Formats: sequence, structure tokens, C-alpha cells
Amino acid sequence: MAKRPTIADVARRAGVSKGSVSFALNGRPGLAQSTVDKILAAADELGWRPSNRARSLSVSKAFALGLVITRDPAVLSSDPFFPAFIAGVESVLSTRGQALVLQVVADGSEADGYRRLAQDGRVDGVFLSDLRHDDPRIGLLVELGLPAVTLNRPDGDSPFPAVTLDDRPGTRAVVEHLIELGHTRIAQVAGPPAFVHATARSTAFAETLAAAGLEPVAVETGDFTAAGGIETTRRLLALPEPPTAIVYANDRMAIAGLGAAQAAGLTVPDDLSIAGFDDSELAEYVHPGLTTVRADPFRFGETAAQTLNRVVDGDTDVPDVELPPAELVVRRSTAAPPL
Amino acid sequence: MAKRPTIADVARRAGVSKGSVSFALNGRPGLAQSTVDKILAAADELGWRPSNRARSLSVSKAFALGLVITRDPAVLSSDPFFPAFIAGVESVLSTRGQALVLQVVADGSEADGYRRLAQDGRVDGVFLSDLRHDDPRIGLLVELGLPAVTLNRPDGDSPFPAVTLDDRPGTRAVVEHLIELGHTRIAQVAGPPAFVHATARSTAFAETLAAAGLEPVAVETGDFTAAGGIETTRRLLALPEPPTAIVYANDRMAIAGLGAAQAAGLTVPDDLSIAGFDDSELAEYVHPGLTTVRADPFRFGETAAQTLNRVVDGDTDVPDVELPPAELVVRRSTAAPPL
Repeated sequence: MAKRPTIADVARRAGVSKGSVSFALNGRPGLAQSTVDKILAAADELGWRPSNRARSLSVSKAFALGLVITRDPAVLSSDPFFPAFIAGVESVLSTRGQALVLQVVADGSEADGYRRLAQDGRVDGVFLSDLRHDDPRIGLLVELGLPAVTLNRPDGDSPFPAVTLDDRPGTRAVVEHLIELGHTRIAQVAGPPAFVHATARSTAFAETLAAAGLEPVAVETGDFTAAGGIETTRRLLALPEPPTAIVYANDRMAIAGLGAAQAAGLTVPDDLSIAGFDDSELAEYVHPGLTTVRADPFRFGETAAQTLNRVVDGDTDVPDVELPPAELVVRRSTAAPPL
Repeated sequence: MAKRPTIADVARRAGVSKGSVSFALNGRPGLAQSTVDKILAAADELGWRPSNRARSLSVSKAFALGLVITRDPAVLSSDPFFPAFIAGVESVLSTRGQALVLQVVADGSEADGYRRLAQDGRVDGVFLSDLRHDDPRIGLLVELGLPAVTLNRPDGDSPFPAVTLDDRPGTRAVVEHLIELGHTRIAQVAGPPAFVHATARSTAFAETLAAAGLEPVAVETGDFTAAGGIETTRRLLALPEPPTAIVYANDRMAIAGLGAAQAAGLTVPDDLSIAGFDDSELAEYVHPGLTTVRADPFRFGETAAQTLNRVVDGDTDVPDVELPPAELVVRRSTAAPPL
């Protein structure tokens, strides 16, 4: 069977660049009509036909990367992780003239979101955030032929490079810090267990307590939002024997919990120690300053974008990238337990 | 001259839909190879050639709206306006399966950013934020044939609907509040004068003082960032006769200024009153809580997206939309001046 003509063949025949051929064959504006005619004539003579593999033969790219979010759109504003992550991504994309395509979809419509990004040739690759246990998106993206980078590693096998930021050392450090201060009655407000990163933090919390011969007073399941932080805190404070310290899975819940505790007449940290996770901008400015875990989401976004671009640029052997682990930041919301 | 063959002609000839023709001619995956071959043959027989007007003949839409930002990417995280605005936009887009294409470009490359969005058929319309005096983007977008909505009104004529949020009543209210508390030595840290919204706030500030027979102690030009807030505050506090109140053009500078004043040994509000603009999430949690102006950027984004979609959907008579004006929020960072 004769070798299928490629865009390079058409370019040679027409005496133009591959990029010009791609533009002409994809109907993109920017070329002189005479050049387009010359290219189409050459394509015709060679018997070139577009195919479903056209994108892999074509040199034209979308010059965009995608992020599909399956949370309430309000989270883009209320959860400080996303703005910082997006800022980090854009710090790389802006230097390459790439755009970020941000799609928020309702739970359950997620597959459609990725299909749309793939089929419209809208993006050259995607970031997979909020990995879930047995995440169906890994298989879906392989099927769609869309390059990706995962934020941290999925449970099973994955053909995609992972950018990892290990939450566990920071979480362990928070619990050890509280134990060193003398706390024995420590509770946790965890993130939703469907998320891999939430489970990682919960496991680290429980393991560190166990290593000190302790058990959690209680583990509440929060939802990473302020409302969830207030609700879970009230439940913990209403226990017959409340905790003397609460470790929250993110700053948003911790800061809301701080407010709830103060509203209930407690002094933080004298009556109750509070710790969060993120080292969001608020953490430094609330009163007392929030002890938390710093994870640098800006750098996470920056590194994820650089890594995804390596894949998109055709590098077939992109290794996982390990960022420095999250680290404890001690401020004044934690102190020795009341006597 | 023979009528130029259209996509509709090719569709009829090949016995397929216009959408299929568009897909085949744009090299988009999703069609059977035999269908693609049939379409290309029909196009060839009719002498169809792609043209710069291809998009207007095509029925396919991008199902996306664009936002080009010409600021440091870090602002996406540090300036609370953008995450909230984007969240508001996405709250509308997510219900219609639309994506937001977010492009950050270096100052000077802005026109390229818009051209790229237009030429690649990447978006159906754009939001014009950070309007500048004599903004060149109005004319550029008309030339590119790209629908738009402006955030507030540009100086000159504009064919695009504007979503307006009048900053001035809120700014006037802040100044009147300080005057009522007894302040006569009031300074301003303004935003960059190139921005229309910064000038609107500055003018309202100056006019309200003048109406009370006062002049500003000083007007510093800030840049809306925390670093700018710290620098300008230090300069004001170093004056031989410093102000007893400072009005900042956004919360970010106000909160940084609050920290700078406290670090210089001042008590807020006893020694110095401070007011901001935005009512960002931080404003409620800093200590003392920040008196500021609430402008609801989430609703701004929501309304801007709804309005732009009306234009994109083909409505030719979309009126400007006026949101409730920004309003004063009094917290504890403002009080009577020291005796």
C-alpha cells in the first residue's frame, strides 16, 4: 500500500512551510488566497485527505490547556487553592501565548466536559485536579487521546506524569506540634473522603496520633467550605467532652471554625487550639494568626503547566515531578491546652 | 462573476449537514472517513475554497467566552476581584456547557491576545475588563468582528453593551463617614490612573472632600497590590503632618497598609483610620475588621456573562445593565481621629 501523503509532503510540493499547509487545510485565516490555492492543489495532486489522526499529523496546535472543575463555581473564589493554582499555571502559559480553558461542569457531566475539550480541538492537554479514588477520568482521557498531568498520583495505573506535593509530612507535623504542646484530646475536620488528597491527610492524622498512643476525640467530615467548617465545629464543641485542639483539612474551614469558636465565647488558643492547611493569604491576617501547613499552590500550578507542556511538545518520557512537601507554619492559633 | 460556493452548497452536493461539512473542512475529528472523502470530493467539484469569512458561513459556535488579562498573572490570586468575577461568570457558563478562555498577556501583547481568540474561532465573545482611557480594544474588537461586553463604560462611543457598577456612591460614602467622625486630615492611596475605574474613585474622593471644604492631605498613586499598599502607606506616615485617615482604592492595599501602620507602632483605628474598597473576604477577618465598600464582583461576573450571552445568541438590541451601586460597609478600622 502506497505511503499515505503527509503534511510535510504537501508542504514540499507546494513550496511552503508545514505550518502554512496546516493553516490552509484547517481553513484558518491568515494566508494569501493564492497560497491557499497552491496548497490545496498540491494536496489534491498528492491525494492527501484529512483523517481522524489529522491532529497528530498536523503541526497546528490549540495553544491552550484545559482545566475541568466539578465543584460549585463559587469555589473558584472561596477556596484559595484554585486562584493561586490558576495564577501559577498562567505564569507559564502567558510566556508561551497559551490560554487556559476553564470549564466548570455539574457533577455527573464531567465526562462531557472532557469530551468537548477533546473533540473541538480546543486544548492540547488537561490538568487533572481533585483526583478521586478509582478516578474514571484516567481511562476516559486515554480513550480521547488527550495528554494530561495529574495533580498527585491516582490509585491505579496511569500513563500520565504526576506532579506531586506530599501533604502528609505537613499534616504529621501539625499533629506532632499539638502533642508536643500537651494536647491529648485532638479532633479532626476532614475533607470529603472521595478525594485522594483528603484521604491522604486523614490517614496521616490518624497514623500520627496512633504512633503517640492516642485516638482522635472525633473525626468530622467537612466539605472544604466555610459553611462546612462552622457546622462541624459546632458539633465538636457540643460534645460532652469537647476537644482541646481541632485540625482542619483546609484553612477555609479552620478560619470559619475559628470564628464559630470565638462566637461561642471561647478564646483561641487559650481554650481551644486550631490548625488549618493551605497557608492561604487569610491565614496570616486572621486573629490570632492561623497555624497551618504551607503547600504553595502557585508553584504547584507553575510546575504542572511546565510538565504538561513537555508532554504536549512531544516529549514521550516525562517523569513525575516531586515538589517540596508541605511544611508546618506555626502561628498563634495553637498553644498548650487549658489546665 | 459566478457566485462563490458556500458550505451549504457543499452540504447539498454531498448529501450531508452543514455541520458535517464544517467539521470535514476544518479537519475536526468525529466523522467517518468515507463521509469526509465524500465531502471533500463535493467541495472540490464545486471549487469551494476556504476564505477569511469561513467562520461567518459556518454554523458551529465556540461555546466559549474569553477574558484577556494584561496584569501580572499573580493578580489572579492576590486581587480578590478576579476570582470572584470569574466564579460569577462560570456560574452562568456552567449551566450552558460553555468554557471560559482565560488568557494572560504581557503589556503590549494585548492586541495579539484578542486576535488569537478571534482568529482561532476560540471564543464567541469577550469580556472587556480594566477599561483604560481611550481604550484601543474597542476599535480592535469591532475590526475583528468579535462581540463584547464592557465592564463599566468606556470614554468614547462603544457598540458594546456595558454592565455598570457605579463605584462613586460607595467612595463618597466612605469619605463622608470619615468627615462625620471628625477627620480633616484625610489622604488617599489611589489606583493606577490609566484605569477608568481608578479615576472614578479618585474623582469621587476629591469631589466629596471639596464639598466639605477640605483638601486631601496627599494623594499617593498605588498599583492595587500589597507591595504598593505598604510603600505608599510608609510615605504617608513619614509626612511631617501625617493623615489621621487613609482611604485606599482597594482592600489589598488597605490591608497591607493596615499591617504597615501596625508594624510602625500605630494602633488602628485609635491613631489612624483605614478604609478600603472591595469588601473582599479578608476584610471581615483582619483585625480590626476593615471598613470598606462592597461591590459584589461575583454578581458583576454573573451579569456580564448573561449579557454577553444575549449578544452571542444573536440579540441585536442588548441594553446596558446597571448593577446596584457599591455601598459602604462600616467595620472597626475607622473611628474618630486622635485628639
